[in-house]
Amino acid sequence: MSRKMVTIDGNQACTHVDYATCEIITIYLITPSSSMAAEADAKATAGQKNIWGSVPAVTQMQSEGGVAGSLHGSLTTGALCTTFTASQGLFLMMPNMYKLAGELTPTVFHITARSIACQGLSIFGDHGDVMAVRQTGWGMLCSQNVQECQDMALIATQAALKSRVPFMHFFDGFRTSHEIQKIEQLTEDDMRAIVDEDLVVAHRQRGLSPDRPMMRGTAQNPDVYFTGRETVNKYYEAIPAIIQETMNKFGAMTGRQYHLFDYYGDPEAEDIIIMMGSGSETVAATVEYLISQGRKIGLIVVRLFRPFDSKAMVNAMPATVQRITVLDRTKEPGAPGDPLYLDIRAAVGEAVESSIVNLQPRILAGRYGLGSAEFTPAMVKAVYDNMASWAPKNHFCVGPDDDVAFTSLDYDKSFNIEGDDVYRAMFFGLGADGTVGANKNTIKIIGTETDNSAQGYFVYDSKKSGSITTSHLRFGKNQVVAPYLINKANFVACHNFTFLDKYDMLANLEDGGTFLLTTTFKKTQVWKQLPAEVQKQIIAKKAKFYIIDAIKLAEAIGLGARINMIMQTAFFLISGILTQKQAIKAIKDAIKKTYGKKGDKVVKMNYDAVDTAVKNIVEVKIPKTVSGHEKPATVPADAPDFVKEVTAKMIQGHGDEIKVSQMPDDGTWPTGTTQYEKRNIAVHVPVWKPENCIQCGRCSLVCPHAAIRMKIVKTADLKKSPKSLKTAAAVGKQFKGRKAIVQVFTEDCCGCTLCVYECPAKKKALEMIDNTEKVRTQEAVNVKYFLELPSWLGIHRRRECNRSSLL
Amino acid sequence: MSRKMVTIDGNQACTHVDYATCEIITIYLITPSSSMAAEADAKATAGQKNIWGSVPAVTQMQSEGGVAGSLHGSLTTGALCTTFTASQGLFLMMPNMYKLAGELTPTVFHITARSIACQGLSIFGDHGDVMAVRQTGWGMLCSQNVQECQDMALIATQAALKSRVPFMHFFDGFRTSHEIQKIEQLTEDDMRAIVDEDLVVAHRQRGLSPDRPMMRGTAQNPDVYFTGRETVNKYYEAIPAIIQETMNKFGAMTGRQYHLFDYYGDPEAEDIIIMMGSGSETVAATVEYLISQGRKIGLIVVRLFRPFDSKAMVNAMPATVQRITVLDRTKEPGAPGDPLYLDIRAAVGEAVESSIVNLQPRILAGRYGLGSAEFTPAMVKAVYDNMASWAPKNHFCVGPDDDVAFTSLDYDKSFNIEGDDVYRAMFFGLGADGTVGANKNTIKIIGTETDNSAQGYFVYDSKKSGSITTSHLRFGKNQVVAPYLINKANFVACHNFTFLDKYDMLANLEDGGTFLLTTTFKKTQVWKQLPAEVQKQIIAKKAKFYIIDAIKLAEAIGLGARINMIMQTAFFLISGILTQKQAIKAIKDAIKKTYGKKGDKVVKMNYDAVDTAVKNIVEVKIPKTVSGHEKPATVPADAPDFVKEVTAKMIQGHGDEIKVSQMPDDGTWPTGTTQYEKRNIAVHVPVWKPENCIQCGRCSLVCPHAAIRMKIVKTADLKKSPKSLKTAAAVGKQFKGRKAIVQVFTEDCCGCTLCVYECPAKKKALEMIDNTEKVRTQEAVNVKYFLELPSWLGIHRRRECNRSSLL
Repeated sequence: MSRKMVTIDGNQACTHVDYATCEIITIYLITPSSSMAAEADAKATAGQKNIWGSVPAVTQMQSEGGVAGSLHGSLTTGALCTTFTASQGLFLMMPNMYKLAGELTPTVFHITARSIACQGLSIFGDHGDVMAVRQTGWGMLCSQNVQECQDMALIATQAALKSRVPFMHFFDGFRTSHEIQKIEQLTEDDMRAIVDEDLVVAHRQRGLSPDRPMMRGTAQNPDVYFTGRETVNKYYEAIPAIIQETMNKFGAMTGRQYHLFDYYGDPEAEDIIIMMGSGSETVAATVEYLISQGRKIGLIVVRLFRPFDSKAMVNAMPATVQRITVLDRTKEPGAPGDPLYLDIRAAVGEAVESSIVNLQPRILAGRYGLGSAEFTPAMVKAVYDNMASWAPKNHFCVGPDDDVAFTSLDYDKSFNIEGDDVYRAMFFGLGADGTVGANKNTIKIIGTETDNSAQGYFVYDSKKSGSITTSHLRFGKNQVVAPYLINKANFVACHNFTFLDKYDMLANLEDGGTFLLTTTFKKTQVWKQLPAEVQKQIIAKKAKFYIIDAIKLAEAIGLGARINMIMQTAFFLISGILTQKQAIKAIKDAIKKTYGKKGDKVVKMNYDAVDTAVKNIVEVKIPKTVSGHEKPATVPADAPDFVKEVTAKMIQGHGDEIKVSQMPDDGTWPTGTTQYEKRNIAVHVPVWKPENCIQCGRCSLVCPHAAIRMKIVKTADLKKSPKSLKTAAAVGKQFKGRKAIVQVFTEDCCGCTLCVYECPAKKKALEMIDNTEKVRTQEAVNVKYFLELPSWLGIHRRRECNRSSLL
Repeated sequence: MSRKMVTIDGNQACTHVDYATCEIITIYLITPSSSMAAEADAKATAGQKNIWGSVPAVTQMQSEGGVAGSLHGSLTTGALCTTFTASQGLFLMMPNMYKLAGELTPTVFHITARSIACQGLSIFGDHGDVMAVRQTGWGMLCSQNVQECQDMALIATQAALKSRVPFMHFFDGFRTSHEIQKIEQLTEDDMRAIVDEDLVVAHRQRGLSPDRPMMRGTAQNPDVYFTGRETVNKYYEAIPAIIQETMNKFGAMTGRQYHLFDYYGDPEAEDIIIMMGSGSETVAATVEYLISQGRKIGLIVVRLFRPFDSKAMVNAMPATVQRITVLDRTKEPGAPGDPLYLDIRAAVGEAVESSIVNLQPRILAGRYGLGSAEFTPAMVKAVYDNMASWAPKNHFCVGPDDDVAFTSLDYDKSFNIEGDDVYRAMFFGLGADGTVGANKNTIKIIGTETDNSAQGYFVYDSKKSGSITTSHLRFGKNQVVAPYLINKANFVACHNFTFLDKYDMLANLEDGGTFLLTTTFKKTQVWKQLPAEVQKQIIAKKAKFYIIDAIKLAEAIGLGARINMIMQTAFFLISGILTQKQAIKAIKDAIKKTYGKKGDKVVKMNYDAVDTAVKNIVEVKIPKTVSGHEKPATVPADAPDFVKEVTAKMIQGHGDEIKVSQMPDDGTWPTGTTQYEKRNIAVHVPVWKPENCIQCGRCSLVCPHAAIRMKIVKTADLKKSPKSLKTAAAVGKQFKGRKAIVQVFTEDCCGCTLCVYECPAKKKALEMIDNTEKVRTQEAVNVKYFLELPSWLGIHRRRECNRSSLL
């Protein structure tokens, strides 16, 4: 079997190996590991076999505690087992993990390293979870990128079997687990070449069986427990060599040679960073750039974190090193330092005492990227600058602006190392509009149809459906190594017109770049509908500006709000990555693959979307004058200070500019703030038809965002009502002479249509209409009046309601 | 209120404060913390009030996970809350602990630090559990002894309220939690003086309430999570000063002045140990002894482990220090060092780089006392000797004999620092015979009735009821500081005659000491019944030898097998701690207190026990000749090697002599080994009466130790049967011509009497008789023959049955 290149994410890369080398896979889904569990389950359902020809049994348990317990049992009978988890899920496995290690039971758990809920919950990535279980006696092997997610999964599997020590194979949640990259896929023969079958048999033989009774799980008293605990020393001593041997064999087979600690940079570096995880790729790229500027710097990437081979670490260090900064992606408040820092202190300290190193390098500690906070080349430069400075900060953080304890490093946000060899595109979509899915297809097409490398990363708002999603796509002839968001884009696409008033999406467009906008406005009208700021940016950046009325086109074809295929086609045609012919063929092939099972009709609709896109892309000539409106304020002028200073920044997408002093210390948040965020995201909004209404109130009740409310009012109170305010004679004897109002809060509406669906009136009392500027303005006036109307009887519901999230 | 001296254990000392300073106590019992939860519950049931005059609500949950969750809720409303836990129980609280810290919620959890189940489970003490949660952001304050369990509980409570950071207050499981000491009890006024009521009000004000709505437990995205995480820095920076201030206030009030790090030893020490927990008391006592021998050594005791104040630690260190050994009571396989070692490395390393210390001391790491393994002055001396040696071992363990990885230090077991100012007594009792309870009373009497300090520690076999318990009692005019087992005893009492054949209990008797034995043999007969080895020891040690037939006396009074009061009286009279008159009065007072509620009859029986003991203590004149029998082998000659080399040593009480190479690496144990342990512990054993037996087999079925078995055999097979073997004609047509045998395995019997109780025969077919030497010998012959008899039909049950344990 020859190896093929595939364009997949870190979770898929990992699952490719772990599924193929296991018999029992026990799961409990937790973000961001879920897709590994889901994929393993899908493979088993489809009858896919492992490398020994059997279909692994995939079982979902009631919690991670159950997963750990059942895996402990399965492993103890000699089966090959795995699971996937993260964050608090990993904690529930801890008691069993100690036992699995103490009983020398080989297994590999694959961990998408994720934050722990502290002052707030975060589903995003850092090393808080894996660092919290570093004391369990498990081996810990870290992958830095998507390729390694696959490679290290295999290396860990063999190392666990050979050493008898269980392993955690971990990689950065979201940043690696969900980044899509073009990688070389291992074949089943590759896996069979690395996993030693004799060790599998030995594991079987150690399994508990009534045929050769033995006992595990005994209690040991003070006389022997300690002695029993010291029996394992030799197993741990052996692991580093086992890992390196396996890495060497793997390197000879694939050409990808890994080491316990890999050094990058100047062989005579004076300042080095030591770290692990995806951030090390950013550092490596920055090191290369800074060395070209004359800096004598380097980087040690930690792959085998446990057992920590202090000697191998020191050996990886150039003899010239004078200063070390250890970067940890976790925070342990109250500790004298974060975990990797403490390890490096011990390793270097012992080496100095044993005269293995001559000079004693100065060692600093830094913290970065908690909860998937961005870690950029600019921050890396700040870390090296700090090291080289006269009075370097120690125990710093880089990223936040700590104006309280002054722990943070300043950094130059404009510093950028990305070259012209990479094409960068950003897409702003609405959650569930298909943008992310389309972009995933785009990457796969580029990965498959061209010799480009490709990278895709997707930023979701945790409001999910109906909120903004940003897709970051990079591709180029060289391997794309940039595990951070795009800073300078060649191409920016806006898939929702209302975003222009809310987000500064052209800030990232580079000069001469391309801007694609979906809009219902015509070529001749669109310019004057843009906010003045956007107009200025387009002019200043000398941008190319294209529009397409994707919504109308999609509706005409029958695709409803799913404008993804149209926008994807537009991107291909405008960007010129492929020729028009190639692009259309590739997209249509992808459509057949994706929608084939749903029948010819669906395929045809999508084919039509491609064809219609080709015909309807319109380039807009850029006027020289700025004529647009001022962007509306993100929150109203009467909003509380906290909402103006903190919430508003988060709404705008500038949450990273909030200072430490502005954040609540203890995660306590004011309530009732969602009322200040007028999202205006609905493409269509309901309009009330009083003549059909039976005033049952069901529409108000079912609206998930409390965007429809009712009042019964006195006629006398309506004297000054806006002309556009609709009323009806109140139904019911007790309301005689009163008026009923069903008011739609269009700015809060998400366009879900539940109100229309649930309306029991024979002729529906609500109808969906286009959410035009006119409708919005008119209803905003009505809403304002409505809110002040004395309510004789009404349904009042707070707006802090159940916004769904993917937690 | 003036303070009184009380003689209580660590758990009681801690609960004295935590109960009085809390409103909500949520519990899930786990050894060794259980008695705190039980005591809090009992206090609440009795309506005892806290220092603010309300009765705390004590609620048991379904698991430690539920405890943490419900406490999180209660705390979030502004209540003062606590719980008690250990080991895996603590792990289930982890997810909530991160949140409690992140949300800056003051509370104190009291932890009896306990091992984690790895290769085997251990209910005993080490720091494995608390070290596994050191990254949660909680403060961690360690108590070294019973007095501190009370004092630090109060200091932690105030510090948590003032700093808003939750605290773990921990102390060594069993060694401190269950050691009884005479301590000075804090008054409620003391507690009110330390706990600042304004801070309690502030905590209340922060509580969630519909009256002032605010939100906690939100999700934070990558834009703000990291910034939110850095808000807490100032709170952690403030803690060390808060703790020291509180300690100072506490010191001024009580005279007990504590520091974050306390130094003991030579102010110009060259070699120091840094550690925490009960073991530091052993080190302190040994340091004092070794300094008197001219050594320049010292000790730093860590009290505030988190936040770790590196500067305070370095300041506590004499400037003369050249070598440091950090002792950890936990093992983290694969780490570059155990946790305290890593912290000290960082603290000293940073101090060297900042030129705070001039010389760079060499730092070594050691591990001790896992799973309550003994940590003695002899081991402490070995640690100092290692430091001073030419090529010191690093990352060593002290205690086990590691003949595999050679990590252990050798130590001179005969090294002893205990002086003549302390009276030491050891009592060997049978689980559930009342020995431990009586000794607890003894300590209390000595603590209350004399100006002596007193210490009691109790070693249980996890076989519990019916197995050996050893009580270690020390008292003297000075404070007793010796958190390790007695090595040289002034007094040894054996409460079960059969122990003489099994345990070397006189090994610990010092020359000229006293030996008290309960026996049914008369003064004139007893000597020749002793094993030869025991006779030799008594002669060589010039011991005084007393006997008392406590069992007969107890039975005569109606106390059955409860010989405790008789033996306690005998101890007081022989030891002469109190005059006879004082002793009798004190014991009778204690009886009234203990049994008063059970009615006059019980009190009188116990009074009688005291009076009868006084009259029946008999001193035995020591012959000069050794005439006794050889002790029987612990296990039979045909036992497997593992049983002879490992199991037998554990049975003898010499499990600590087992080498690392002899222990299974992965906790896998051979099955069927209990058959080789002939415990012979029953005072009375059943004898079969064939004439009454209906052969229903129920006796065999109900015997929890499979000590009664049945066979139906051919008469022809009985030709060579021992004369003493009893048989009966087999009942049932199908067994015509066969014989039935119900064989009692007296050596395995525990004397529970269930067989007799359950026998449905009109005239009972089983009767309890004295388990004399004659009976044992005879039945052993029968058993041997019985086991070899071909069974035509029988009930075979394996002996690996449900021996109860307190896990």
